[in-house]
Amino acid sequence: MRASFYQGNHQFSIEETEVSSPGHGEVQIEVAYCGVCGTDVHIFHGMMDQRVSIPATIGHEMSGTIVQIGAGVEGFQVGEKVVVRPLDDRGEQPSDKGFSHICKDLKFIGIDSPGAMQQRWNVPAFTLHTIPPETDLKLAALVEPLAVACHDVRLSELMPDELAVVLGGGPIGMLVALVARQRGAQVVISEVNPKRILLAQELGFDTVNPAEEDLVEAINIRSQGRLADVVFEVAGVQATVDVMTDIAGIRGRIVMVAIHGQPKAVNLFQFFWKELKLIGARVYEREDYESAIQLISQNTLPFDALITRVRPLTEIQEVFEEIDQQPDGMKVLLDCQQ
Amino acid sequence: MRASFYQGNHQFSIEETEVSSPGHGEVQIEVAYCGVCGTDVHIFHGMMDQRVSIPATIGHEMSGTIVQIGAGVEGFQVGEKVVVRPLDDRGEQPSDKGFSHICKDLKFIGIDSPGAMQQRWNVPAFTLHTIPPETDLKLAALVEPLAVACHDVRLSELMPDELAVVLGGGPIGMLVALVARQRGAQVVISEVNPKRILLAQELGFDTVNPAEEDLVEAINIRSQGRLADVVFEVAGVQATVDVMTDIAGIRGRIVMVAIHGQPKAVNLFQFFWKELKLIGARVYEREDYESAIQLISQNTLPFDALITRVRPLTEIQEVFEEIDQQPDGMKVLLDCQQ
Repeated sequence: MRASFYQGNHQFSIEETEVSSPGHGEVQIEVAYCGVCGTDVHIFHGMMDQRVSIPATIGHEMSGTIVQIGAGVEGFQVGEKVVVRPLDDRGEQPSDKGFSHICKDLKFIGIDSPGAMQQRWNVPAFTLHTIPPETDLKLAALVEPLAVACHDVRLSELMPDELAVVLGGGPIGMLVALVARQRGAQVVISEVNPKRILLAQELGFDTVNPAEEDLVEAINIRSQGRLADVVFEVAGVQATVDVMTDIAGIRGRIVMVAIHGQPKAVNLFQFFWKELKLIGARVYEREDYESAIQLISQNTLPFDALITRVRPLTEIQEVFEEIDQQPDGMKVLLDCQQ
Repeated sequence: MRASFYQGNHQFSIEETEVSSPGHGEVQIEVAYCGVCGTDVHIFHGMMDQRVSIPATIGHEMSGTIVQIGAGVEGFQVGEKVVVRPLDDRGEQPSDKGFSHICKDLKFIGIDSPGAMQQRWNVPAFTLHTIPPETDLKLAALVEPLAVACHDVRLSELMPDELAVVLGGGPIGMLVALVARQRGAQVVISEVNPKRILLAQELGFDTVNPAEEDLVEAINIRSQGRLADVVFEVAGVQATVDVMTDIAGIRGRIVMVAIHGQPKAVNLFQFFWKELKLIGARVYEREDYESAIQLISQNTLPFDALITRVRPLTEIQEVFEEIDQQPDGMKVLLDCQQ
């Protein structure tokens, strides 16, 4: 079979390898598609060389079909379409209080262990979610990032008719916006990149470019002075951290989706004054995966528009280089059988 | 009658004034005791000269007895003991979403309008809470700060047996600790001032001095690795903002009680990583006042120990100067009839 390997130093290789049988408790998947995540790009940039085991097969935003079932696995059948929830939570401890998805010893499959950017993939059966047979496997590769969005929106406790502002219109921001709108919220996307603004508008979203327009005033007008009920901070820069507390109204909830590598200056006075909440949100729980699978299989949201292109796995090196050159695209999928 | 007036420039005066009758919708209170709040000290320091109308009678942590009832007031009787919830929320708008206690046009009685540091005080009847006749009026002057603590603990959603860490053992921190313990939590107070540490220990609290001991390790040991379920940030300095995210465990809630005049560096990565919540909390709602009144009238908590001294209103100038010289005391009450 064919597999890709991150070799360090901005290089992927494609190699023919032996297919190993699934171990006890494992299932073998024929991987259909695997999306490229920001984390994968981070790995490509050498930012996570301490964490991945080079040579490393990475990738976790995938869809596929079960082709072999290991010993001790029940409840799955060859031929079933599946997606993997890439969280290995077998190290969970009582001190994790039952929040297995963020347990202290969590291993992320596709980073801490081999991922999906290969033709066949053996994974623990407990990571599988079956998807309806009629599901488009291209769209199903969006389940993982969509589950992130479902988790973010769920933790925000967003209610119908509330005003949600999404700071940052990248892939996760756009998915958060789609889920928030589907839940009945009024959604505004704040984004500075012209291509992303255009896409957001094509998807029917109200947009504000904070480089050209005062975002606080824009939100004030749209909410008749109430300001935002919910803010999703997806951009991860000081400017969005500065504005997040300004655009949130009384008892507003700010969901921290972005990964801030360094501490940032936060206007804590506003938290006190308006009784704001900041809600950290990371990955997803089982129910978020089920919500995402339902949305993808219903296919009533414009997920297609988020797939920028589909490329053969054999071209993985060019794909990552192109993403570096054109960082304003949305999702690029690798066709792992090509 | 006798009234005190803040005159600016670190000066109070005591003057004999005419007693005016309560207006429509107002009640006249014979003020028994009025505690000195940190905000009052702030006013004394000239930090709020833009906001108060000099000469200003300040004070809002009070207890008293109804002596006269204005036109249009129902449901109150002369002789009833009362406390005032000093929030004038008559400017509430729909954009405040029903959170009248923090509405945009909130006027704080005792800052934005005359306060309780006088013998007789006319206040709108809607600010009154009656208290049981047997209640000690000295203790009742603690209802206002205790209501702050009840609000903080309520918003934290603290559950019995959870571990709560209070960062800062001043008057509010100590009241938060008392309420949290009364709700069944395990409470640790982090404080650097030796006098306050001693008082906390006398009240039976587990204390950590973070200047002498690693607070994170101390909390880690006490929680068997779970870390804090709830953190109350009551100190308002960068050091406590730094440590608040370190001592909070998975899905920990951090209540922002302190007033941070300037933005502070916050470890937002920890919010993401551990799915922490930051909960802003300001003043109180009606139910917090009722909780505080119940606690004070039951008198089963060591509130007496928090009253550092009681001094005549006529000595207000000396009282404020003493607080400046000995900032590690707890509550000083003014006897407003003396």
